[in-house]
Amino acid sequence: MSIKKDQNVGLVGLGAMGSGMAQSLRRAGYTVHVFDVRPGVAQAFAQFGGVACDTLEQLAAQCTVVVSVVVNAAQTESVLFGDPHGANPTKGCAAAMAPGSVFVMCSTVDPLWSVALESRLAELGLLYLDAPISGGAAKAASGEMTIMSAGKPAAYALCEPLLNAMAGKVYKLGDKAGAGSKVKIINQLLAGVHIAAAAEAMALGLREGVDPEALYEVITHSAGNSWMFENRMAHVLAADYTALSEVDIFVKDLGLVLDLARASKFPLPLSSTAHQMFMQASTAGFAKEDDSAVIKIFPGIELPKKS
Amino acid sequence: MSIKKDQNVGLVGLGAMGSGMAQSLRRAGYTVHVFDVRPGVAQAFAQFGGVACDTLEQLAAQCTVVVSVVVNAAQTESVLFGDPHGANPTKGCAAAMAPGSVFVMCSTVDPLWSVALESRLAELGLLYLDAPISGGAAKAASGEMTIMSAGKPAAYALCEPLLNAMAGKVYKLGDKAGAGSKVKIINQLLAGVHIAAAAEAMALGLREGVDPEALYEVITHSAGNSWMFENRMAHVLAADYTALSEVDIFVKDLGLVLDLARASKFPLPLSSTAHQMFMQASTAGFAKEDDSAVIKIFPGIELPKKS
Repeated sequence: MSIKKDQNVGLVGLGAMGSGMAQSLRRAGYTVHVFDVRPGVAQAFAQFGGVACDTLEQLAAQCTVVVSVVVNAAQTESVLFGDPHGANPTKGCAAAMAPGSVFVMCSTVDPLWSVALESRLAELGLLYLDAPISGGAAKAASGEMTIMSAGKPAAYALCEPLLNAMAGKVYKLGDKAGAGSKVKIINQLLAGVHIAAAAEAMALGLREGVDPEALYEVITHSAGNSWMFENRMAHVLAADYTALSEVDIFVKDLGLVLDLARASKFPLPLSSTAHQMFMQASTAGFAKEDDSAVIKIFPGIELPKKS
Repeated sequence: MSIKKDQNVGLVGLGAMGSGMAQSLRRAGYTVHVFDVRPGVAQAFAQFGGVACDTLEQLAAQCTVVVSVVVNAAQTESVLFGDPHGANPTKGCAAAMAPGSVFVMCSTVDPLWSVALESRLAELGLLYLDAPISGGAAKAASGEMTIMSAGKPAAYALCEPLLNAMAGKVYKLGDKAGAGSKVKIINQLLAGVHIAAAAEAMALGLREGVDPEALYEVITHSAGNSWMFENRMAHVLAADYTALSEVDIFVKDLGLVLDLARASKFPLPLSSTAHQMFMQASTAGFAKEDDSAVIKIFPGIELPKKS
């Protein structure tokens, strides 16, 4: 039984991706209930339609589907189970959600944690979708982002129209949790290694006195190109390290890649090297800069300056 | 003074790239003199037009421009200077070329060797173009390959029409030798790291039980994509390791990358790691397989089989 437009949808976490996704749901005609830990953010969203909730409990009690768009697994745990032992104890969504409703987990997380979460929620009578996202804030706002998902047919049956409202492409990768997060993690492996490799290549060019604009032109038209080289080296050429995605995101995400592989004792020589490069950049003072700032770990070169 | 159609052009090395380039020159109306160390190869080419030369000397004496398309710097040395102390002593092109003629070096080589070669040839009154190529055999045959070039204006003045006849895109990267080979080497850095990263990502997916076809579909539509992932992982999915480009090519080319950087004590963490992966693949028995066979170094996985 698919969700109807008069059923309530909840979305938790109105950050760069979440706010765009909530807009997409609203645009599709759903009554969107929203919650964000930052005071006023949910109210600002609801000014243009939808319902701002003061607590996760309140949101969860009213919604058949709850979409969680927070930073990581720890925050997702808080969304679901609250912080009962904190200085200001809070309750989460899980206890308030009606049996048979669906929790859609959109964060980039350890896939093994996501697999376990499906079982934990099943014990509470709740359905679960392992559904990491990708594509950036602009595509989230226009409903053109990507969802890499896996979950039980009953979970898809209820929330598939919502997924299609939020994303241009919904990959269905399996009938139980895990494959969504695994594919997302593998995408992050490649993205992280490619950014670090792009930086290494551009740094060598600068060291060797090659014109960086010419190098960019040739590589982006050659077999050495990657999506990340083309996108991130434009930031280096413009000397603009304003974070679209921070160095510390890849400290985290390549860390998740390595955690996953370590669990089955699987060697990842390039991922582990790239992770070291992002950690070096982070601790050298570039943690909150754009991830292309990983190029700043290379010694003996002069980076392009702002024109 | 640009080369005229009634002036002779020489091309040495009728391999996968060179034979296509010689065809492109012939198609453009030039009288192409060719030489190859393998008996009969030059004669086979000349059946359809052009002149097969029995010796490098003979070719060099008749041609205003000599295009060299051999495997590496050592073979280029032989093309130019022969093997005077070998069991069957030979002479090369250099002594027979007329003053003011141009030697076009298309191999992937140590850029510092290429810089030095320009000076060595200048002492003999010869012009030089540092002009590595890329794009593969099919594009060489159709005249759509890429040339990454650098050299003196006088060298370009004479041979630029030939470059345009052989390539869809001619990058002019500097007015002396070096930048052509440097950009080519940096392209190989990225190509090599991306093939190894693609293998690492696909291997992790197989280890984690992700459907490899689905993983390929998602990655090739996501920010983790690279030219090499898309091209080479298709070989892995098809279980077809017929060498289009061998594992040992990247043992050589990433070796050149590391040699270049070592000369200025520049660290390349990812290139050195990827080089180790290709060396492991080579010595494990996959030297002459397609470079995507680097995935065979990963333990504990079952690769896709031929369907």
